[in-house]
Amino acid sequence: MLKATIDADIFREFIDAISALIPECRLHTDENGISTRAVDTANVAMIGLTLKKEAFDSFNATESQLGIDISKMKNIFGMAGKGDLISIELPDNAQKMSVSVHGYHYSITLLDTNTIRKDPSPPTINLPGKIVIAGEDFNNAMKAAAVISDKIALGINPKDQTFYLVAEGDTDHIRREFSKDELKSLTPVEARSLFSLDYLKDMGKVMAKAAEVEIFLGIDHPVRFSFDIAGGNGHVEYLLAPRIEAD
Amino acid sequence: MLKATIDADIFREFIDAISALIPECRLHTDENGISTRAVDTANVAMIGLTLKKEAFDSFNATESQLGIDISKMKNIFGMAGKGDLISIELPDNAQKMSVSVHGYHYSITLLDTNTIRKDPSPPTINLPGKIVIAGEDFNNAMKAAAVISDKIALGINPKDQTFYLVAEGDTDHIRREFSKDELKSLTPVEARSLFSLDYLKDMGKVMAKAAEVEIFLGIDHPVRFSFDIAGGNGHVEYLLAPRIEAD
Amino acid sequence: MLKATIDADIFREFIDAISALIPECRLHTDENGISTRAVDTANVAMIGLTLKKEAFDSFNATESQLGIDISKMKNIFGMAGKGDLISIELPDNAQKMSVSVHGYHYSITLLDTNTIRKDPSPPTINLPGKIVIAGEDFNNAMKAAAVISDKIALGINPKDQTFYLVAEGDTDHIRREFSKDELKSLTPVEARSLFSLDYLKDMGKVMAKAAEVEIFLGIDHPVRFSFDIAGGNGHVEYLLAPRIEAD
Repeated sequence: MLKATIDADIFREFIDAISALIPECRLHTDENGISTRAVDTANVAMIGLTLKKEAFDSFNATESQLGIDISKMKNIFGMAGKGDLISIELPDNAQKMSVSVHGYHYSITLLDTNTIRKDPSPPTINLPGKIVIAGEDFNNAMKAAAVISDKIALGINPKDQTFYLVAEGDTDHIRREFSKDELKSLTPVEARSLFSLDYLKDMGKVMAKAAEVEIFLGIDHPVRFSFDIAGGNGHVEYLLAPRIEAD
Repeated sequence: MLKATIDADIFREFIDAISALIPECRLHTDENGISTRAVDTANVAMIGLTLKKEAFDSFNATESQLGIDISKMKNIFGMAGKGDLISIELPDNAQKMSVSVHGYHYSITLLDTNTIRKDPSPPTINLPGKIVIAGEDFNNAMKAAAVISDKIALGINPKDQTFYLVAEGDTDHIRREFSKDELKSLTPVEARSLFSLDYLKDMGKVMAKAAEVEIFLGIDHPVRFSFDIAGGNGHVEYLLAPRIEAD
Repeated sequence: MLKATIDADIFREFIDAISALIPECRLHTDENGISTRAVDTANVAMIGLTLKKEAFDSFNATESQLGIDISKMKNIFGMAGKGDLISIELPDNAQKMSVSVHGYHYSITLLDTNTIRKDPSPPTINLPGKIVIAGEDFNNAMKAAAVISDKIALGINPKDQTFYLVAEGDTDHIRREFSKDELKSLTPVEARSLFSLDYLKDMGKVMAKAAEVEIFLGIDHPVRFSFDIAGGNGHVEYLLAPRIEAD
């Protein structure tokens, strides 16, 4: 059972953070809020999101799983205006979710959760390097690097106390170093891994709105991004596998 | 003979209302203004427009018929700026129309009116249900419905005194009810017909600028839209045939 | 050797003026600034640009030639924000240029100048007709004419003291006359030549920002455009061959 109302902008932020990586998901509801955890079809990126009941204007739910077509949600809520309230209602065991916004009433058929991949277990990896950076700075770096290449190395230089990004194209390269002054914080541990810019560009767009993004790095290890949405009442974790550095 | 000057924005409004449905038309001129009546190539929609001489800054015409390439007109007047005056001149029996705007002089070859379909006669159908609604509200409803489906039912519920719109997609549906408070007026007569959203979306864009649109409905009958343009000095009628409701 | 810093907007203006016609060029540097002269691949248009050292915040160069991929430069500097400073550095005989902007450091491989066509010699042609016009007026005329045709005649009528532009489409034509009042100056010498609008549209976009553009015309001869960029510290010359007037 789910019965909730939420500001359209906040719900859109939540949907956008998921749709950056996956077109459909298994949404968990319980008395504390909603959450999802999923892996993209290529098994390269993992996403974990929670939206606390405090992010909602009203929220009432029992423990349940819903199969959500995220792309469809994105199209529907793209129509909602600023300040609109979205009402969601789903009786026990119902196959259809009622959504109302600004006088419009939608009946949306849920996906069969059996057809959606099982929730991945969060891997236990040790990523000792940590940077905290403004989301917009990270997003701009991804856009600049994408002009030159389709992959980028993210690293920490513990001596200089810098967070660096290096992208090599066929003939050109780009390098950006963030000094400690440009960062919110930096743990001076040697780290460097190579990643696909295709994924980082999409993730960057979502992070652009976050004042602070925590980035966790290792050596030839995945990268983990952790940041708040919905004014602190929601949280996003992105995990991205490294690419093999070829010469 | 036609010799007239008109504000570029007003003339563009007139051209846009035609181009929403048909790429070329037979324009009638007489001492009172200009008008056209036409059916779209699929014989599904009919359009009737008049622009009174009061909509023009100056107007002088004898009774005549002109074959107009509406798409071409749209491209040409897309260039005109806000507040520009358009001068149109066509001597008796001329094949070319002179159009001047902001220092540019166009000579535009008219279409042979023999190649354009004869004017349709306005059908006499009784559509007892009537709603008056803000054009923008109707347009927004068409945009919302188009996300879910390619057809929509428009109807009147005389008991609730509501105007309702229902679109059914393969798995989802959307419903919007306008109560009497949200409408300018409603005639509480049972009505319901199904229409193609392809047409209604294009018509909706034109109606969006109208403060009031009259909508006439029956049961499995066409819908007729009637609204003013050019500050009340022009008028548009759209008639759209219903689709068969299939299960 | 080249070591210079320049405002991103000014450098973008320089790059845009080149990229309107050619995708790569041979850039000459000396102690006075940078310059290029090139012909487009179809041998129809010639371009000559100079950017004086006064356009730079700092400038230090020896005589040299650099092969520049203009399209790549356009992509890279499209990222630079308003007020950003670009630093360029190229040691003697280096194959890679270092470019820094807003914390980003690019290493860009130069093109082999042997693979770029030799600099054309500026032709000595006598073009007695001369008009000086606001760049925006000329650009607007190109956009209006392009709706009707893909070629345009530019001419001077010495009797009326007008600069005229005539484009003939298959069935329509457009004419624009600029009287002496609408021009900065006009030399009343008979002139008329036909040109491709494909080229003039692209050139027009660059000219749109120039307060004054000098246009030199003859009879069935090329047209030459001459205007300043970078607040007077840069200069552009475009030369365009005429098309044969066919009936």
